[in-house]
Amino acid sequence: MTTGTIFGVGLGPGAQDLMSVRADRLIRQASHVAYFRKKGRTGHARSIVEGMIGPVAVELPMEYPVTTEIPFDDPRYNALLSAFYESSVAQLIEIARAGHDVVVLCEGDPFFYGSFMHLYTRLRDAVPVNVVPGITGMSAAWTATGQPVTWGDDVMTVAMGTLPETTLARKIAETDALVVMKIGRNLAKVRRALASAGREHEAWLIEYAAMSRERVIPFSEAGDTAPYFSILLIHGNGRRP
Amino acid sequence: MTTGTIFGVGLGPGAQDLMSVRADRLIRQASHVAYFRKKGRTGHARSIVEGMIGPVAVELPMEYPVTTEIPFDDPRYNALLSAFYESSVAQLIEIARAGHDVVVLCEGDPFFYGSFMHLYTRLRDAVPVNVVPGITGMSAAWTATGQPVTWGDDVMTVAMGTLPETTLARKIAETDALVVMKIGRNLAKVRRALASAGREHEAWLIEYAAMSRERVIPFSEAGDTAPYFSILLIHGNGRRP
Ligand SMILES: C[S@@+](CC[C@H](N)C(=O)[O-])C[C@H]1O[C@@H](n2cnc3c(N)ncnc32)[C@H](O)[C@@H]1O
Ligand SMILES: C[S@@+](CC[C@H](N)C(=O)[O-])C[C@H]1O[C@@H](n2cnc3c(N)ncnc32)[C@H](O)[C@@H]1O
Repeated sequence: MTTGTIFGVGLGPGAQDLMSVRADRLIRQASHVAYFRKKGRTGHARSIVEGMIGPVAVELPMEYPVTTEIPFDDPRYNALLSAFYESSVAQLIEIARAGHDVVVLCEGDPFFYGSFMHLYTRLRDAVPVNVVPGITGMSAAWTATGQPVTWGDDVMTVAMGTLPETTLARKIAETDALVVMKIGRNLAKVRRALASAGREHEAWLIEYAAMSRERVIPFSEAGDTAPYFSILLIHGNGRRP
Repeated sequence: MTTGTIFGVGLGPGAQDLMSVRADRLIRQASHVAYFRKKGRTGHARSIVEGMIGPVAVELPMEYPVTTEIPFDDPRYNALLSAFYESSVAQLIEIARAGHDVVVLCEGDPFFYGSFMHLYTRLRDAVPVNVVPGITGMSAAWTATGQPVTWGDDVMTVAMGTLPETTLARKIAETDALVVMKIGRNLAKVRRALASAGREHEAWLIEYAAMSRERVIPFSEAGDTAPYFSILLIHGNGRRP
């Protein structure tokens, strides 16, 4: 019996027909499908593939431990997450060693700020792992604005809303095109950083890019928070014939 | 009769099954398929879709004017390219106004440093245009390295090898993860910029990501030039539980 392969499959930004043909085939043919979710939720990755999973496929939801009461920088936070990844990985390895392939559903592109990466680094020395890239959320975001994001020699910077305000402000000031992800509760800080870089009127907020609730607004019209699936975008303006 | 729509369709990095399900359907059902190419060549975008285009579909190769003898910064260079885009656009508009949809094949993601953008800005006020995002070349590149590109709060910078050496060196020094595109004849300059940022031993060169000739090497082992389809990558190393 040969060991099964763990496939980390990029689902793209959220529309079912924006996943790759390779991802589509792997998911429809999968005997085992794993995905992260919060306790008591369907899970966003799972909801993207609704209707695609075969009737006899085994589903393996991996439920995040509840961390809401532990501050992000408390070592217990990391310890809890790490233990969760270890036990998820142990389960995946067991299934692979029993000869089955497992498709792990990953939002966007798996290797681009994805949670699959935490499984990947723990899996790759134990069992065969295969990663299928996907369309990123940011690609869907700039497509939604109806304006190209980068031209000619433009520099593009991708930064997280979780960075310190001064770091964000510097990154925003020094780039042509900009993508900020993980906005959510960091929105007020991101707004101050934009303002101190003098670029608040160039920015767009894209919520739920490529999903049915997609919304594009000037960042200046955003409220005090944004949904988890939000991206801030500044378009580059480089050389063009 | 209703005016047709021009679809700018992202093909992804080069493997046929890495295009989106939406792109796959649009291309197989297209009555008119347009693509850029150099005179006398098949064209890379066209070769990606080999075998997918219907037998009665009309093909519209858009052949770049020969610019090899005009320096890049000569105003005649821009004038020539601009005239080429204008005439391509005129042809597309004529077909759309005759009631036909046209699929324009775009490497990677159309709005990310893509040549389709030059048609798009000239088309969008005249006829309906619809853009389908795609997997970028850089996603295929980091997937090929078998290592996630960004973790936690990592900042990622995308820069072009065509930038001045000092700008490149500064961008390389100031980022966590790095992507440099358009390496080709800029390789020696990029190497010097990497060295002055002290990061030459962190960099990888990925040629033809996701294509049959895919090759991943430490950048230090690269020669004096690289093919057009080459990406330099430095992985981020951020916080991880
Ligand atoms: C943990 S990262 C995962 C990124 C993902 N791997 C990708 O390739 O896009 C989560 C962040 O991605 C962004 N994001 C991903 N998909 C999105 C979408 N469809 N619309 C808006 N934001 C999205 C949001 O900023 C969100 O906070
Ligand atoms: C004009 S840009 C087009 C980028 C494209 N729109 C995308 O989304 O990837 C061309 C550059 O993209 C990079 N590139 C695109 N696809 C690639 C691939 N499959 N392998 C390596 N490099 C690629 C190379 O650096 C090349 O010089």
